Amino acid sequence: MRLIGKKEIEHMAIGAALLGTGGGGDPYIGKLMALQAVEEYGPIKLLSPEEVPDEALVVPSAMMGAPTVMVEKIPNGEEAIAAFKALEEFLGQEIYATMPIEAGGVNSMLPLALAARLGLPVVDADGMGRAFPELQMVTFYLEGVSATPMVLSDEKGNSLLLNTIDSVWAERIARKATIEMGGSVMNAIYPMTGRAMKNSSIHHILTLEEQIGARIEAALKNNKQPINEILELTNGRVLFQGKVMDIDRKTQDGFAKGTAIIEGLGTDLDKSCRLHFQNEHLLAEVDGKAICITPDLIAVLDAETGMPITTEGLRYGARCIVIGMPCDPKWRTEKGIEVAGPGYFGYETKYRPIEELLRKEEV
Amino acid sequence: MRLIGKKEIEHMAIGAALLGTGGGGDPYIGKLMALQAVEEYGPIKLLSPEEVPDEALVVPSAMMGAPTVMVEKIPNGEEAIAAFKALEEFLGQEIYATMPIEAGGVNSMLPLALAARLGLPVVDADGMGRAFPELQMVTFYLEGVSATPMVLSDEKGNSLLLNTIDSVWAERIARKATIEMGGSVMNAIYPMTGRAMKNSSIHHILTLEEQIGARIEAALKNNKQPINEILELTNGRVLFQGKVMDIDRKTQDGFAKGTAIIEGLGTDLDKSCRLHFQNEHLLAEVDGKAICITPDLIAVLDAETGMPITTEGLRYGARCIVIGMPCDPKWRTEKGIEVAGPGYFGYETKYRPIEELLRKEEV
Repeated sequence: MRLIGKKEIEHMAIGAALLGTGGGGDPYIGKLMALQAVEEYGPIKLLSPEEVPDEALVVPSAMMGAPTVMVEKIPNGEEAIAAFKALEEFLGQEIYATMPIEAGGVNSMLPLALAARLGLPVVDADGMGRAFPELQMVTFYLEGVSATPMVLSDEKGNSLLLNTIDSVWAERIARKATIEMGGSVMNAIYPMTGRAMKNSSIHHILTLEEQIGARIEAALKNNKQPINEILELTNGRVLFQGKVMDIDRKTQDGFAKGTAIIEGLGTDLDKSCRLHFQNEHLLAEVDGKAICITPDLIAVLDAETGMPITTEGLRYGARCIVIGMPCDPKWRTEKGIEVAGPGYFGYETKYRPIEELLRKEEV
Repeated sequence: MRLIGKKEIEHMAIGAALLGTGGGGDPYIGKLMALQAVEEYGPIKLLSPEEVPDEALVVPSAMMGAPTVMVEKIPNGEEAIAAFKALEEFLGQEIYATMPIEAGGVNSMLPLALAARLGLPVVDADGMGRAFPELQMVTFYLEGVSATPMVLSDEKGNSLLLNTIDSVWAERIARKATIEMGGSVMNAIYPMTGRAMKNSSIHHILTLEEQIGARIEAALKNNKQPINEILELTNGRVLFQGKVMDIDRKTQDGFAKGTAIIEGLGTDLDKSCRLHFQNEHLLAEVDGKAICITPDLIAVLDAETGMPITTEGLRYGARCIVIGMPCDPKWRTEKGIEVAGPGYFGYETKYRPIEELLRKEEV
């Protein structure tokens, strides 16, 4: 157990932006909420997964919906509490700790704010090791943990308790309800025992985020480009460097879908990189060849500062570095690829690990 | 209290078709379910509203969604039971009785089937005295009873417990969830005390349905046209007689919306009647003048048999009699007209009671 204060939250937010792989929602609002909660209620207890008792009830907390909506409809914090209270009542058991379902983006920050307000510890783990857009795209699901009973609560005071036959149905029904409830809600979801959490989650991901943030910050202070630090911490590789030349983006079914074309500079001169995104970057191709494929992580960094750029933040002319990072091994199983591989998102490419793709590329 | 068996159910189904005012879903499937349940579990106790203790918990049961979907996705009966059990558990109180929320159409029959299976009595009352398409269009709502907590259950085993800030939000969220759950679900909704039920419901409506059905059946047996019997029981008036000449119907947002044009015959020769419907008939005009307006009831009867024809059943060339019936006085309040008057459905006509419209017509 260690305590998390403002400095740690600031660092985690930077790491969360990187692991958001262009999506997951800008951590900024979540960071402000977490900072304010810590200011008011004091530091947050961060538990290592192994510190959680096997029989304890762990309930992840997450925002569902379009992060772009959340920017205009900022959660007041009461939604997440209402969802937790309703789920606790339904289960008839006290919640021992919370945790993020996704480390990438805004959803890594919101559980921190909730934990501070409720005086609950946060487990240093998540269910993605990155960001993904749908509820069943979590390692909890891969390991057989059910998304329901789950509660959705909105800022108006409406709430919904869902019991579904599987987590894909939970996603379908909750998604439609979320849209009707104004486009974003807070969830209490994937309630599980400490034992199930240890088995199904990605461990120490908040600490990784924090390290990433701290290293980026330190490098920037010394006027150093922090790319190498990032690659080292994430086992990442530079995929491409260049200048954003074309962005084709549309909002469809609540997702920002599209492609970006980056023209090569430096060692990539005369080459062209195409990024395919659906909220998150999901597929990177160089001269038509896939070089990084979901569930492996793709991030676009500002060439100067090394800071992550979201898919919405991509601007014509921006100089950037595209990096790829291997996903957690849980995603590289048959079920993992089925749930969050390229086929699910409608890309024809077959999944191959980034290490393999880059090895071929180099030959 | 009296017992309801097969004969009563057959009669009620005929009355339910009339009060469905062209919509509400064909009572046929609901009737079959009720008959089968009575066959298996014995007759149903029908309670007069005043027989229900003030503190007893009464929970109406209803199908939500497109009745046309229900024809292909027939409820197996377990959905309604699951919804009741989940709501009972949430409220921590046993349900004393059930009742329909709408007497018109299929939703008058389904609570009978549920009651037989659960051994619960049915209250001889509803919340519409007719059929309407949305959850807040009930006299319960007019009297301040909340639609939630409510439970929606589908045939797959998914269920949703809703707690909303008002019944319009319940309608909005539940509607979207219903569509995602396959287009029709069973609800346990508007839980209320016996006292609230007595105050907010339309009393003895199932008995009225039964009387209508019995009288129609008896008339037909004697080769008599039963129109006069119907008018007598419902305080109804003949609005028009003629032949269906044109039907413009489209399915939009799950509703069958459109108009039908009926050319006059007999005393209405050279006149023309236009019916506007959205599942239910909502507005009848003769030669451009409104003669019956929602929430008053409009029904189209087969000119020969007097049997009600649904909006979907309207066919070119069919000879028919259009009748109008005054709605329950609860609907004729300011709030009633706001909730289910012509303005809500997008018609420019202002509501005036059928008695007044016909008086003017006759002058």
